[in-house]
Amino acid sequence: MEGGTYIKVAVIQLNASSNKEENIGKALSLIEQAAAEKPCLVALPEYFSYMGPESTRYDQAEPIPGPTTSRLARAAKKHQIYLLGGSILERSPHRGRCYNTSVLFNPEGKIIAVYRKIYLFDIITPGGVLSRESLTIIPGKEKVVVDTPLGKWGLTTCFDLRFPMLYRELTLKGARLIFVPSAFSLHTGKDHWEVLLRARAIENRVYIVAPGQIGHHPPNFRTYGNSMIIDPWGTVLARAPEEEGVIWATLSLERLERIRSKMPGPEFEAEDRPEHPAG
Amino acid sequence: MEGGTYIKVAVIQLNASSNKEENIGKALSLIEQAAAEKPCLVALPEYFSYMGPESTRYDQAEPIPGPTTSRLARAAKKHQIYLLGGSILERSPHRGRCYNTSVLFNPEGKIIAVYRKIYLFDIITPGGVLSRESLTIIPGKEKVVVDTPLGKWGLTTCFDLRFPMLYRELTLKGARLIFVPSAFSLHTGKDHWEVLLRARAIENRVYIVAPGQIGHHPPNFRTYGNSMIIDPWGTVLARAPEEEGVIWATLSLERLERIRSKMPGPEFEAEDRPEHPAG
Repeated sequence: MEGGTYIKVAVIQLNASSNKEENIGKALSLIEQAAAEKPCLVALPEYFSYMGPESTRYDQAEPIPGPTTSRLARAAKKHQIYLLGGSILERSPHRGRCYNTSVLFNPEGKIIAVYRKIYLFDIITPGGVLSRESLTIIPGKEKVVVDTPLGKWGLTTCFDLRFPMLYRELTLKGARLIFVPSAFSLHTGKDHWEVLLRARAIENRVYIVAPGQIGHHPPNFRTYGNSMIIDPWGTVLARAPEEEGVIWATLSLERLERIRSKMPGPEFEAEDRPEHPAG
Repeated sequence: MEGGTYIKVAVIQLNASSNKEENIGKALSLIEQAAAEKPCLVALPEYFSYMGPESTRYDQAEPIPGPTTSRLARAAKKHQIYLLGGSILERSPHRGRCYNTSVLFNPEGKIIAVYRKIYLFDIITPGGVLSRESLTIIPGKEKVVVDTPLGKWGLTTCFDLRFPMLYRELTLKGARLIFVPSAFSLHTGKDHWEVLLRARAIENRVYIVAPGQIGHHPPNFRTYGNSMIIDPWGTVLARAPEEEGVIWATLSLERLERIRSKMPGPEFEAEDRPEHPAG
């Protein structure tokens, strides 16, 4: 390998149920497994700590910091890793609804970023199964980029992936790596997951780190898995097989800058903005 | 088939050289071949009338209307088709530079839309081959959506594909179908063409009509081909094999509206805008 900044990333794919204690235990055990390879960064999927019926979400919500984030903080510190707590249900002042919140820890176990999912998953599938995340979750407002010694990282979650302007904004704010922790449905994931992840990587020339849930979540939800780590050219560096586990890849910030130097990107559009306001 | 509005589309894939008369003759002959299947709409790729060294472009530019558009107008009227003249080199008042311009004709042979490519193809490939379209082409400024009895159609060209906000704007202006006539390089096309086309279709829930150039263009440019027609779910309805020819697909505006009714899309982001201005 040539010189420069390398980031070894581990992505955890798991199947969460409505048994929160079991889910967190599984996540901690997979973090342990991931840490054995000495990564800088480990990422968990959306809703890694709880995937029960939508109506039960509110009762599972916790403050941040709170019991679940304390356990993740300890794991980050123990293994000396940056750790993305894909998302957990965060308590809100709103009756019956909570936030779908990602929390990023540094290797000292400190929370360095909190992102509340902006675009909520409201769809009707051909079988008539309806997801109405907005009934139980309050959308976030803030777009989050965090500065680390390994570069700036942007935070997004799952359904956000359908909204390219969010990724553009994070990129224009300096993000070199964007997280997409997800519980992407099997129905939409089989046709949209890889293509949208790769497009976000290519059009913004960023690394994409996308841990996903896999399998059946009672009562009636199935997730697509296929957790991925993608480079700024759109190459899938690592893809999870159809089971729980960990995948790894090593990111090179020099490779990213080489790609950016050869092809104009978002900055081109940004320069263009004053003349062509989006409104 | 169920009732509603169907649009039979033919997409032409060809290999243009620096012999303009031969290129136009080939295009007219492929339009004839396409017309035999009675499509409503036929689309030619970017630079279908001329693919010579960049330095020779200026001398090949024509006014619009002009000789080449007159021949296309006659073909549209003869076959009673909407016809996209992928792009031609359009004369400009600027010394040494011209526009890369798409022209859309209606079945009466009238020009109903003119689009000048906004994002120009300036890249360095690993082999060191440089494309500097901006040395010989002036970028357009206007984003173009045209209203037809078959719905609103948006016009874009090739490298524009890397800029998702353009597609978002065309969609928010009502486009149900977006053209991407291209001469995508083999080097970038193999990794980016399909994924970006499908992403634009999925994230905007529009039909994508993407005629491409194929093969070797002396002195040293190779195009990727793989011309496509893609539905609003991101499914590739038709793909050209690795040769010159015509592909067809039938678009259903009802299918598009069904997909849109089941999943929130750009309008979600648009509503969101006042609160989160992109600037």
